[in-house]
Amino acid sequence: MANFAKRMDNIKASDIRQLLKIIGQPGIISFAGGLPAPELFPVQEMKAAIDAVLDENGRTALQYGQTEGWKPLRDHIVKRLEKKNNIHTDADHVLLTAGSQQGLDFLGKLFLDPGDVVVMESPSYLGAINAFKQYECNFVEVPTDENGMIMSELDRILATTERVKLIYVIPDFQNPSGRTWPLERRKAFIDIINKYGVVAIEDNPYGDLRFKGEYLPALKSMDPEENIVYFGTFSKILAPGFRIGWTVASAAITEKLNLIAQAAVLQTSTINGMAIAKYLDMFDIDEHVAKILPVYKHRCELMIQTMRECFPPEAKFTDPDGGLFTWVELPEYVNSRELAARCLEKGVAVVPGDGFFPNGENKHCFRMNYSNATDEQLVLGVHRLNETIREFLK
Amino acid sequence: MANFAKRMDNIKASDIRQLLKIIGQPGIISFAGGLPAPELFPVQEMKAAIDAVLDENGRTALQYGQTEGWKPLRDHIVKRLEKKNNIHTDADHVLLTAGSQQGLDFLGKLFLDPGDVVVMESPSYLGAINAFKQYECNFVEVPTDENGMIMSELDRILATTERVKLIYVIPDFQNPSGRTWPLERRKAFIDIINKYGVVAIEDNPYGDLRFKGEYLPALKSMDPEENIVYFGTFSKILAPGFRIGWTVASAAITEKLNLIAQAAVLQTSTINGMAIAKYLDMFDIDEHVAKILPVYKHRCELMIQTMRECFPPEAKFTDPDGGLFTWVELPEYVNSRELAARCLEKGVAVVPGDGFFPNGENKHCFRMNYSNATDEQLVLGVHRLNETIREFLK
Repeated sequence: MANFAKRMDNIKASDIRQLLKIIGQPGIISFAGGLPAPELFPVQEMKAAIDAVLDENGRTALQYGQTEGWKPLRDHIVKRLEKKNNIHTDADHVLLTAGSQQGLDFLGKLFLDPGDVVVMESPSYLGAINAFKQYECNFVEVPTDENGMIMSELDRILATTERVKLIYVIPDFQNPSGRTWPLERRKAFIDIINKYGVVAIEDNPYGDLRFKGEYLPALKSMDPEENIVYFGTFSKILAPGFRIGWTVASAAITEKLNLIAQAAVLQTSTINGMAIAKYLDMFDIDEHVAKILPVYKHRCELMIQTMRECFPPEAKFTDPDGGLFTWVELPEYVNSRELAARCLEKGVAVVPGDGFFPNGENKHCFRMNYSNATDEQLVLGVHRLNETIREFLK
Repeated sequence: MANFAKRMDNIKASDIRQLLKIIGQPGIISFAGGLPAPELFPVQEMKAAIDAVLDENGRTALQYGQTEGWKPLRDHIVKRLEKKNNIHTDADHVLLTAGSQQGLDFLGKLFLDPGDVVVMESPSYLGAINAFKQYECNFVEVPTDENGMIMSELDRILATTERVKLIYVIPDFQNPSGRTWPLERRKAFIDIINKYGVVAIEDNPYGDLRFKGEYLPALKSMDPEENIVYFGTFSKILAPGFRIGWTVASAAITEKLNLIAQAAVLQTSTINGMAIAKYLDMFDIDEHVAKILPVYKHRCELMIQTMRECFPPEAKFTDPDGGLFTWVELPEYVNSRELAARCLEKGVAVVPGDGFFPNGENKHCFRMNYSNATDEQLVLGVHRLNETIREFLK
């Protein structure tokens, strides 16, 4: 019998990835994934871009390339960060990654020795927890309210916790809670991490998917001390199938991430980086995002409205201004893993909440996604959920 | 200043990846990379395959997919392993990886605690050394001769070394040596690893690139005890730009690799897996390989013939039956790192040999690649090398 490394004791199957296998079955309404709406993918535009890449530069596209990724794509990313997020950087500080998930793995590898501490919002993204767990770290959860991470709690934790190596946050339309940090919390966060000199990952996959309220600046745009490592991705605004995301970090961190990428994977796909760069040359991605937003806004509002109409008052949920998720809290005696299993029997998939708490508490919550369902599915799925929730209430 | 993990002390820049940045410069003849000949890439065929995928199934291609990878591609891989390598498996035992490099990272993560031992041929693939070093392992090198790993030495090492968790081998046209193990060594290897119950990685990127001599069976085809983890890739027979390779392993190991893939990267690129599957539906990859082989055979023979004609007798080199590399050994007093630097000044790039020895010895060798150079470059580059070598001889 194979003698696996100790870290494997920590690595469990992702509830979401396991659910993805089930939710393709007919009749299942899925609120489980974080899947963008495939009917909005710019398939013909991407085909035109890929064809142009292969016609103009096919041999380069199929060959090995540099570890940091296709330079024209990194230049596009730099320009868009400047324009949309007021983040000033250059291509040398950008590393392409195979989605932000790979960035999480690389940052864990870069910073975490066994027993080191990662500080996260409570709850936080399940995939980040799983990525960091590979490095045998411990987690400290920062309490949150309807405006996200509570900064006085973060300050207290950093003042009293040893071996904090990384802070991981999603300030915009957080996964799983759907919450967004207001401006004053963003400023306070930067002041606190600079006070303690801790590196923080700002994971921003959903920032462009704001369909309500006012734009709020990225943490990275207020980061002269370069303690923020910013993660962006094309997965939610263009298409996840290419597996292209990116990190923006200080020169020292980017150099180390590049070494990790060399050792772990050599590089992201050459053709995929070139295809997205060509798409950005040929088309206006902001026009594309402008087509997505009203659809997601509608789906979110329909889901929330239906929940408001039918859910019992014991079920509390967030009303997000963007992104892909809402988060439901039930009375503490409800076990969301049993609830989710019963929901699946009734043909609707949600993700049980405890996976989003790194220390495994809080079993009475679950995550719902609205981006990848029709109106009919949204209404029917919420009604099925409502029936199931009522079964579990005392 | 960022406080990096201890493992980062082990992670150095890959000589090859660093050289790749230089060798794009005009006037440089590169024998340094392991790059396939781009003029042989089936660019128009791949374009037809990608267009068909996007026309028939575009939304699926751009969406998230399962961690194990596109099932029709895994089915193709299974069929081809059966036909070409007499390896009997099924799609459930196959995991797509972002090139075999990612497989190396995943296997290191799966098996290696700090201080564990990896056993390798001496010399071995630099990228494997770098991948495993991330997991703070130690290396034991097995002496080799012109027929590859010396099996009595392997047996002795396994009998006397504690904490051996992995053996890493390239039996066909090894990187960097170009050597191939004869049948009796393959059988002996299987007997030895089964005796000790150690897991071995058979990395076989070049097996299809045999242009001389008789086919020899893969270790995996003689592995009823499932101690072999087999690595294959489309990088050398089709195109590396897609970053699609695969592992074949026991159910227990494949399940764990899948969990690692979930946590590290979610999945390989959906569209890339589908594009290669469609290429394999539409075209005969063996016909494509049959077009590559005579080109590589010619380039290899021209390089070796030119070396024979001009190199001093102190320079020994291998005459490979396939693959991409020959390996040059000089007298022990020659420092190949200084030699390679001087070669670059003269406009020819080779990879200094010490990077291929995990414990950093043997500085008097270097690796040469012939697959990605014209006839003129092959002859001129070897002559420049010859001049440089003679400068370094006493």
